[in-house]
Amino acid sequence: MGFLLLKPEEIQDLVQMDEAIEAVEKGYAGGKKYPFINAPRRRVHSPAGVRISNFPGGVDEMGVIGAATRADHVIQLDEGKNQEYSYREHPIHVLNDADTGQLLSIVVGEPVEKSLGYTSLVALRTAATSGVGFKYMVRQDAQTAGLLGSAGQAANQLLALLSVRPEIQKVKVFSRNEENRAKFSRKYSQKFGLEIEPVASIEAAIKGVDVILCATNTNVVLFDGDLLEPGQHVTGIIGGNMQLVQGGFLKAARREIDDRTVERADVVVANLRESVISEQQGDLYEPIQRGIISIEDIIELGSLATGEATGRNNDEEITYHKNNNGTAASEIAVAMLVYEKAMANGRGTMFDLIESEALMKGFAK
Amino acid sequence: MGFLLLKPEEIQDLVQMDEAIEAVEKGYAGGKKYPFINAPRRRVHSPAGVRISNFPGGVDEMGVIGAATRADHVIQLDEGKNQEYSYREHPIHVLNDADTGQLLSIVVGEPVEKSLGYTSLVALRTAATSGVGFKYMVRQDAQTAGLLGSAGQAANQLLALLSVRPEIQKVKVFSRNEENRAKFSRKYSQKFGLEIEPVASIEAAIKGVDVILCATNTNVVLFDGDLLEPGQHVTGIIGGNMQLVQGGFLKAARREIDDRTVERADVVVANLRESVISEQQGDLYEPIQRGIISIEDIIELGSLATGEATGRNNDEEITYHKNNNGTAASEIAVAMLVYEKAMANGRGTMFDLIESEALMKGFAK
Repeated sequence: MGFLLLKPEEIQDLVQMDEAIEAVEKGYAGGKKYPFINAPRRRVHSPAGVRISNFPGGVDEMGVIGAATRADHVIQLDEGKNQEYSYREHPIHVLNDADTGQLLSIVVGEPVEKSLGYTSLVALRTAATSGVGFKYMVRQDAQTAGLLGSAGQAANQLLALLSVRPEIQKVKVFSRNEENRAKFSRKYSQKFGLEIEPVASIEAAIKGVDVILCATNTNVVLFDGDLLEPGQHVTGIIGGNMQLVQGGFLKAARREIDDRTVERADVVVANLRESVISEQQGDLYEPIQRGIISIEDIIELGSLATGEATGRNNDEEITYHKNNNGTAASEIAVAMLVYEKAMANGRGTMFDLIESEALMKGFAK
Repeated sequence: MGFLLLKPEEIQDLVQMDEAIEAVEKGYAGGKKYPFINAPRRRVHSPAGVRISNFPGGVDEMGVIGAATRADHVIQLDEGKNQEYSYREHPIHVLNDADTGQLLSIVVGEPVEKSLGYTSLVALRTAATSGVGFKYMVRQDAQTAGLLGSAGQAANQLLALLSVRPEIQKVKVFSRNEENRAKFSRKYSQKFGLEIEPVASIEAAIKGVDVILCATNTNVVLFDGDLLEPGQHVTGIIGGNMQLVQGGFLKAARREIDDRTVERADVVVANLRESVISEQQGDLYEPIQRGIISIEDIIELGSLATGEATGRNNDEEITYHKNNNGTAASEIAVAMLVYEKAMANGRGTMFDLIESEALMKGFAK
């Protein structure tokens, strides 16, 4: 018996976006079939601002159960309107065999999409989770997208969309920084082989497009839901957790999408309803508190994957996927994919693990 | 930058019980001063019966925050009255610096009390947590103890008691297996230098003693609370979680201590109230449901350590510590102690960790 230790530089070129989307879909579908295998993310904070995000759970179809742990040193900016990280540690993924419990691997580092390379943390699994939503919620004939944000998360979100809707032909990208949006346009129009137009406002980015991708790090609402047009799909990626507010790091719950969007959306999907409640995530928790929507009205992502629910009923509906946070269904799914690829490619270092009986014999007193 | 990888055989002889009790006390006291640093244990289960127990949190006074993960393959016996493990994997402890977020160590393996050696899993931190309760709840003049159970957990519990009440002179030990209780008596009376009498019933073990230590793996009540005598302290160690019942592994919530004990106890302490509710732990959750006690009546262990609450008001009170489950306050405290000792003793293997900037440079595309 032994386990494979994988380090960050050993896992940078192993996984494709379409494979990651497939794995994450297995994760959320499995969590619907057997809910006890998945749990909400839980966060704890140190007084100095170090945040641990913890993801226990597994993907039975992939034969894995375990937990992922991320440590970030969070700094609040602009009186809590934005946040940045003074340090983000490589995440740690503990992977055990779902049938025996045996430790398979400790994956240290962020799983990365191989064609995009290392961009930013949580970019791949967040985008792959959006990808499951795109698959079931974006119109089949979608051809255009509006992208808010121009960093690594934006590139990964766009690639996830292209993976399930390859016929997308035109993208408008907005970033507060003019240079950044121009740079994104140049780099990724070439890489993805499509037209990417940098635009100067959020309103311009979302007007007339079929899909709206939020890929910023905002703590406040990005646009007015009244601007949405029939047939559009919106994906938001900001979860946020009440501990940030209770711990004094933030003045109010993080928002990204407004109440009006929730009100207008015909279909509202979240990754895991339990997280909405347990973390009091502003974008859905506040509309629930105000009576705009009830928790039962929110469809879980896994229900789209199992076919229990429909992500879009016609081409006129406004659909909204709150990719509200990672859970083990995505974290462990993608890490397991990394482990499988690493094994196939001879990556990493195998460590023997002493058996408990030998330990007891050798160290009994 | 780098992290220290510690393997099971490298951490067997590093920690003393009194040090572990002190560390766990810091953990629970810190969780009272800054609650966002600690969280309840969360468990997830695979369909095949692999259970992941996950413990996010830290101990600010020790400069650590992180998460521990345990994987066990659980098998139910006697129609769910007892359980055993077909496989228990070495636990994994991820330790990050509470000030910077940097990964300090990955500790693979069970931290073990150095004079007792490897006995059973979770024995040290469970006993050290009981030890914090003993310190504040057991009568100062206590001289006798009744011990239910005769395996590794029992030895560790007894050592924890002796660490804070060295004047204990006589112990009665009960185990269903006659040979086991005789063996325990022979081995540990010599090791601890006191009289240990094997007795043939639970009733005999608890009659007339000052402290009652439960150290079995039962799923059902051990004794009738009416048998308790004034001045006695009881510590129970079974938590249990509703997911076991919901997942079909158990027919009813695990019990160890009855409702009558809760009714008669003048002081009831639990490690973390949130776990009682979130896991619907039978020994306290069911009495709450029946109106015997309210959640507010339960004192948290950390409140004894900070001095906010009193564990015992006089020598006549019956006191009851439900050591309801490990949390990061104990798991991470003991693992950090192991890491500190390992560093001081040159144990383990240091691994360099590539910086994110170098990763981005080397693997950008």
